[in-house]
Amino acid sequence: MTAAYGELERRFRRLALLGEAAGVLQWDMAAVMPDGGSTIRGEQLAELKLLSHEALVDPRLGDLLDRAERDESATLDAWRRANLREMRRAWRHASALPGDLVAALSRATSETEMRWRGARADNDFKGLQPLMQRVLDLTVEAARIKAREFNVDAYDALLDEYEPGANAAGIAGIFDDLAGFLPGFIDRVLARQAKLGAPLPLGGPFPAAAQRALAERLMKAIGFDFDHGRLDTSHHPFCGGVPEDVRITTRWDEKDFTRGLMGVLHETGHAMYERGLPATWRLQPVGTARGMALHESQSLLVEMQASRSREFVSFLAPLAAESFGGGGAAWGVDNLHRIYTKVSRGLIRVDADEATYPCHVILRFRLERALIAGDMKLDDLPAAWNAGMKELVGIVPPDDRDGCLQDIHWPGGGWGYFPTYTLGALAAAQLFESAVRSAPEIPAALARGDFAPLMGWLRPNVHEKASSATTDEILLAATGAKLGIDSFKRHLQRRYLDG
Amino acid sequence: MTAAYGELERRFRRLALLGEAAGVLQWDMAAVMPDGGSTIRGEQLAELKLLSHEALVDPRLGDLLDRAERDESATLDAWRRANLREMRRAWRHASALPGDLVAALSRATSETEMRWRGARADNDFKGLQPLMQRVLDLTVEAARIKAREFNVDAYDALLDEYEPGANAAGIAGIFDDLAGFLPGFIDRVLARQAKLGAPLPLGGPFPAAAQRALAERLMKAIGFDFDHGRLDTSHHPFCGGVPEDVRITTRWDEKDFTRGLMGVLHETGHAMYERGLPATWRLQPVGTARGMALHESQSLLVEMQASRSREFVSFLAPLAAESFGGGGAAWGVDNLHRIYTKVSRGLIRVDADEATYPCHVILRFRLERALIAGDMKLDDLPAAWNAGMKELVGIVPPDDRDGCLQDIHWPGGGWGYFPTYTLGALAAAQLFESAVRSAPEIPAALARGDFAPLMGWLRPNVHEKASSATTDEILLAATGAKLGIDSFKRHLQRRYLDG
Repeated sequence: MTAAYGELERRFRRLALLGEAAGVLQWDMAAVMPDGGSTIRGEQLAELKLLSHEALVDPRLGDLLDRAERDESATLDAWRRANLREMRRAWRHASALPGDLVAALSRATSETEMRWRGARADNDFKGLQPLMQRVLDLTVEAARIKAREFNVDAYDALLDEYEPGANAAGIAGIFDDLAGFLPGFIDRVLARQAKLGAPLPLGGPFPAAAQRALAERLMKAIGFDFDHGRLDTSHHPFCGGVPEDVRITTRWDEKDFTRGLMGVLHETGHAMYERGLPATWRLQPVGTARGMALHESQSLLVEMQASRSREFVSFLAPLAAESFGGGGAAWGVDNLHRIYTKVSRGLIRVDADEATYPCHVILRFRLERALIAGDMKLDDLPAAWNAGMKELVGIVPPDDRDGCLQDIHWPGGGWGYFPTYTLGALAAAQLFESAVRSAPEIPAALARGDFAPLMGWLRPNVHEKASSATTDEILLAATGAKLGIDSFKRHLQRRYLDG
Repeated sequence: MTAAYGELERRFRRLALLGEAAGVLQWDMAAVMPDGGSTIRGEQLAELKLLSHEALVDPRLGDLLDRAERDESATLDAWRRANLREMRRAWRHASALPGDLVAALSRATSETEMRWRGARADNDFKGLQPLMQRVLDLTVEAARIKAREFNVDAYDALLDEYEPGANAAGIAGIFDDLAGFLPGFIDRVLARQAKLGAPLPLGGPFPAAAQRALAERLMKAIGFDFDHGRLDTSHHPFCGGVPEDVRITTRWDEKDFTRGLMGVLHETGHAMYERGLPATWRLQPVGTARGMALHESQSLLVEMQASRSREFVSFLAPLAAESFGGGGAAWGVDNLHRIYTKVSRGLIRVDADEATYPCHVILRFRLERALIAGDMKLDDLPAAWNAGMKELVGIVPPDDRDGCLQDIHWPGGGWGYFPTYTLGALAAAQLFESAVRSAPEIPAALARGDFAPLMGWLRPNVHEKASSATTDEILLAATGAKLGIDSFKRHLQRRYLDG
């Protein structure tokens, strides 16, 4: 290990530990903090963030990067070179923007996010618009500065924060393919499901304690280790914590256990990725998850590919019946699988099934790309939203509450994030197909509630790669191809039309 | 606000926020963290501590202190001058010691604390002795450096970390008075209680959920606000968190609810102090609790002075009977009050009643003072411990497990802490006596479960003073006298011999 590089590892170790401390504070805020703690918690988090930012943009750190890249790169092994590349990426994002722009963005997004809650409840797009405009203007300003610095398009500079190296042109190609396929596919699935009639209702209520016991049992089946993690409740489910102590959260709906249960399995997929990251590279940039698309691929792999499969549902159905005292045809494998694979045209992204979900994402990607490029005005967003919904999902929202005001991402400054949901779904299908090809016992194992063969394949092929390679490199090595839509289309065809 | 002083406030605000972040991590570790998270949590905490230490010993901070004291002190109001004084105190403690001594102490205390658990279980003083010797040697080295720097005795330099401005000579005078009084007093109380016979047993078991419900009800009666705090369980009860979000913990013993319940009320007293600190001075040194003696006075005021009073027990007894389905003479006020005021000669400090507790503390104070001064060798500790127990408590431990190995303080490096427990008990008695003199309705209010008059007196007289004055100044203003033993003696006489 050489002089500048070694010092860089020391500095990034501190940054990682600071980030993890902030993560504990965030989990606490969502899962256990009383309301009265929120203001001071905001100040604690802001100070940790500022401290980390200062440490990252410290000119001496920039000098160390220059020296390590110039003088030491040739002497470093592949992981250390990759680590150096990830350090540079973090540094570039942090130091590209002037401090007053970062502060203005932070203030604007906090205020807009806070006001968004009321504006959505009141269906008041016009009332939120000036604040949204301010967030958009500052986001565009930041994106243009980074774009010049990184020598990419403005939108790609935003995307790079969530999905390193991705670009809008490539995504647009993939998404256009999907947009050409999905609406017709959805028509065919709906016609087929209409012929079968609605699934039988499961009754209820479903006590939270019984839901929790069932969820914990399935989490353990997937490989979640409660000596190294927790399951708690929060308003918005998420996966937080650190690899040694992964904290996932959920909500229990006593009227319907099916969604909450899949939510837990989804977060467990995220948790397994974190748990599987290489211990050798803990606290270094190269040792962290590759990006949002691969992270989402791991949750969707567990939820959509594995847990909603006919095989796993055949394991789940009797357990669920036992947990809630259910019986008869409604609690049989057929009916539960129909519930878990039901497709419908809905207004709300977070409630969407896997067939319509990409349509919601494609809409947002097209709109945010146009807004960032200046090809569309915020004034035109509600109309463009509704037109896009008509085209892609086949229904039109009656109001903005369930239309362009439904997501927190834009008011909160998360521009360029949306595409990663669908890139993750595509990657999940591609990885699952390769996993089954290479370990054909996976479906039979899932039918026994045994995730070991699937995790045994994912660990070396995805988890342990961490950020040592790009998403496409990881996918190419694992599946023989870069990210595409073929596996996803085959998966949909098999599950919804052939099955 | 002047230039250097303003910058100092900014820097100490950051230090306070970092300390609070570490506090959340510590609460989490004690209350909710799975075991598998402990190693990385240790690293997160160590990094936050190191970062704070670096920020505090930054030479520019020393320069700012010099400038503010020299050029700006005359222009500052009393609270800002007091804030500057507290900043200097924090800086002096942090910068007195060379980094390698701090690191060596931290390593030695971690190792010794860890080994202490096993050594205590195995009754193996000799096995722990070399590690204890190392901790003692390093502590003496640190104490001597600080003593030279602060121009005080070595022991006083240690004491100053916990009880600013206190000195061993003054404490020895107070403790000698107490040691002259307590053994004879305890004899008289035991003779009196023997004549009455043992209190009637309450039966059991006592379900944790019912204990919790009762504890929450009493916490609310004291004024604890669950929008600004939580009650959780941990192995060792403590009060953590921040004034806006106070986190207290307890343990539930289903065989005996009486101790756990008083434990919760004790921690609630600490919590009320934190909640009552002045909001104006949040995140500044002058806005924090004065010291360990006053902090303990607030918990003992609520537990010993108020909650074990005949008046409060008359409120508690019917509630307890209702909570656990008790009835008859055992659950009457008389019997519960006898349980809550029972005196006995015991080996273990943490199990001691308020009459014998100071004897345990005086023993430890005398021994640690002699060890730090070099007047006693660690070899002689077990024999000296047993002789002191004989003299002060009237019984001799059968082994070191329940003798000189019982406390974590010395192995963990907490030399100079013990006296604050009894200084707190004395201050509690003195403050309570003055509170009742100034608000004579307090006892009748306690009999209704109403703490408002007591808290209404404590808030301006103690809580809101924070660190704006010394402990003795606060006591003098609140009670007309510096800290002494007269109120405590009167309290004991009244409760245990006259009552």
